[in-house]
Amino acid sequence: MQFKQIEGGVCAPKGFTANGVHCGIRKNKIKKDLAMIVSEQRAATACVYTTNLVKGAPILVTKENVADGYAQAVIVNSGNANTCNANGVEIARQMCSLVEAHTGIAQTDVVVASTGVIGQPLSIEPIAGSMEELVKGLGNCSHSAAEAIMTTDTVPKEISYAFTLGGKEVKIGAICKGVGMICPNMATMLMFVCTDASISPSMLQKMLSAEVKESLNMVSVDRDTSTNDTMCVMANGLAGNETIDKVNADYKKLAKALHVVCVDLCRKIAKDGEGATKLLTCEVVGAKSHKIAKVVAKSVINSPLVKAAMFGSDANWGRVLCAIGYAGVPVDVAKVEVSFLSKEGKVLVCKDGAGVPFSEEEATKVLKQDEVVIAVNLHDGAHKATAWGCDLTYEYVKINGDYRT
Amino acid sequence: MQFKQIEGGVCAPKGFTANGVHCGIRKNKIKKDLAMIVSEQRAATACVYTTNLVKGAPILVTKENVADGYAQAVIVNSGNANTCNANGVEIARQMCSLVEAHTGIAQTDVVVASTGVIGQPLSIEPIAGSMEELVKGLGNCSHSAAEAIMTTDTVPKEISYAFTLGGKEVKIGAICKGVGMICPNMATMLMFVCTDASISPSMLQKMLSAEVKESLNMVSVDRDTSTNDTMCVMANGLAGNETIDKVNADYKKLAKALHVVCVDLCRKIAKDGEGATKLLTCEVVGAKSHKIAKVVAKSVINSPLVKAAMFGSDANWGRVLCAIGYAGVPVDVAKVEVSFLSKEGKVLVCKDGAGVPFSEEEATKVLKQDEVVIAVNLHDGAHKATAWGCDLTYEYVKINGDYRT
Repeated sequence: MQFKQIEGGVCAPKGFTANGVHCGIRKNKIKKDLAMIVSEQRAATACVYTTNLVKGAPILVTKENVADGYAQAVIVNSGNANTCNANGVEIARQMCSLVEAHTGIAQTDVVVASTGVIGQPLSIEPIAGSMEELVKGLGNCSHSAAEAIMTTDTVPKEISYAFTLGGKEVKIGAICKGVGMICPNMATMLMFVCTDASISPSMLQKMLSAEVKESLNMVSVDRDTSTNDTMCVMANGLAGNETIDKVNADYKKLAKALHVVCVDLCRKIAKDGEGATKLLTCEVVGAKSHKIAKVVAKSVINSPLVKAAMFGSDANWGRVLCAIGYAGVPVDVAKVEVSFLSKEGKVLVCKDGAGVPFSEEEATKVLKQDEVVIAVNLHDGAHKATAWGCDLTYEYVKINGDYRT
Repeated sequence: MQFKQIEGGVCAPKGFTANGVHCGIRKNKIKKDLAMIVSEQRAATACVYTTNLVKGAPILVTKENVADGYAQAVIVNSGNANTCNANGVEIARQMCSLVEAHTGIAQTDVVVASTGVIGQPLSIEPIAGSMEELVKGLGNCSHSAAEAIMTTDTVPKEISYAFTLGGKEVKIGAICKGVGMICPNMATMLMFVCTDASISPSMLQKMLSAEVKESLNMVSVDRDTSTNDTMCVMANGLAGNETIDKVNADYKKLAKALHVVCVDLCRKIAKDGEGATKLLTCEVVGAKSHKIAKVVAKSVINSPLVKAAMFGSDANWGRVLCAIGYAGVPVDVAKVEVSFLSKEGKVLVCKDGAGVPFSEEEATKVLKQDEVVIAVNLHDGAHKATAWGCDLTYEYVKINGDYRT
């Protein structure tokens, strides 16, 4: 096994500690709302952010702080996005100052992020009042940090793997949160990845920028690209491998590890999509180009009608064809083949762009599972892509009909 | 009053009759599923169709039949889209032959359309078996025709107006159906407009193609562009006005009448959007270009999060900002102003891209109405646009979770 799943989340790699506490931004006292991750030493740091023109204030501050390619700590609050607030940047800077005051880490080495409601002023008081507790508890607490960044997520999301680079054991771990306003473009939601691998900042940024295109940008819960999406990778080098400063075998292996981590978390985010009862994966093969494969996969996974049909375990494949047809890329619809798959089996529903007879009973059995694959073969080339999403349910409407209250 | 609303729907203009019956494509016997509109004489005819690459077979046949700019009859079934079927074109042609056999109108002068489930073979038998009844009942029955083209629509949709062209009284009337898979591009859903105005086919096509960009293409229920969208305008000339064969004052007046009809039906479609409890209108002003205004208006009206917030009467304006930010057009978000309006008043919620204090109580009162306007001022120019949509509700999910069953 090239990559071995291990315990520990962001604290699995050497030299990283984390914590999460309830500071009071959220009224519900059992919900943690403030998280921190700290590296023993400055780490090469790469970030990608939302492409939304409305950007959370923390993104502006983080961009400044990681401009030199390094950071040493992450501070994140949930319950308030600190976006569209007149004093947003000031508050985000104060969060970094608080980290410096309590840890000695320079405020310019801090990654800051916020998630929650847009357009409500964020008070620094609850954060300031809990910094001592937060810092004191820093330890092997990836799970607490993962809990503290949740918004409408129903489960905390973390993952970690071990592998080797040039004979040295290297670990990579991550936490993230979803699960609404999820349709990333260049970045997504909040995701923090830590590794003790040694790599130069520029190679790390190159690796991250390539990776998000194949994983995070292929997840969609509701096509709403958030204002605060931030993904950050920190590599502190404590594993002692030879520093990766070019695209070589080690670069490729670390990139693969990052991909494994990201795909795992993408699936977790999609499966926990607001109100979702099932994870949908759209696998497109036989495309004329990689771009066509990606656009088709995302169009299918985004269709509210496909999503609602999947919720009802209804093999309404015409909606899949429809979503392929309006994707906006050249596809020969007369060649399209569609099947539904799950652990209960595989049902071919459409061939050469037209329906084929199938057992509705068998199809329902396949679709009633909590992980369903919509397999599309365009029979038009050798390119493929995968997108992840979820079904559209009453709960999605309920969650978003009264989110603020 | 330049345009006076009158009774009659598609039968209001001289020389048009219509009918709708239950032929048996739908199992529910109280649901009509076959409609016809007939003109006393051949009418200049213009059509626009879906841009989805997957196109219903009837569209292919209609395109051939109206290539010469004329048609005399329309036949439409609901309950089956006749799309993605191997024998789809053959069946659509048979529908036209049946019209010829029962009315004497050449099958090449027939507009044919189908709407309903995609990918289920459409049998000609129920249609053939009901043609006699359908044709015998042709008369002032616009309402029956409007009923027969409904799918998940809860109310039939028709409208008609009278006005004058060069001293002659002219009438224009229309029927249409929505209300899911609604995100037209170049055309929309099914809409049939009849007028007794006299106009050349090429001028009529020009008028229609321009009109859809400002009205039908600005309606969205769920961003799913259907495979069968067809809009057809027939002008039989019986009003006796001087034939419009260039862009003159009469052209502009008829275009205005067509616009009034289309906007009225767009609002009806949006308000009856699947599961909708309210009509949402997004009015964008102050845009640098017309295109920017349109893209922003559609992005807001399409956001599932905005739609769900409106369902919950929650003044969560941050989601409006978010949708403006990811619209993909250049907008200075620091200048954006947003208000919510209804017959209960107007509440300013965001100015200069940031929140302003407002009474939640007052906002809720405004948003609880069944017609709500989201007013956006970009403060960046003089262009404007309007888009229509609806809220996202439990019912939308319910309707689409088991549509086929």
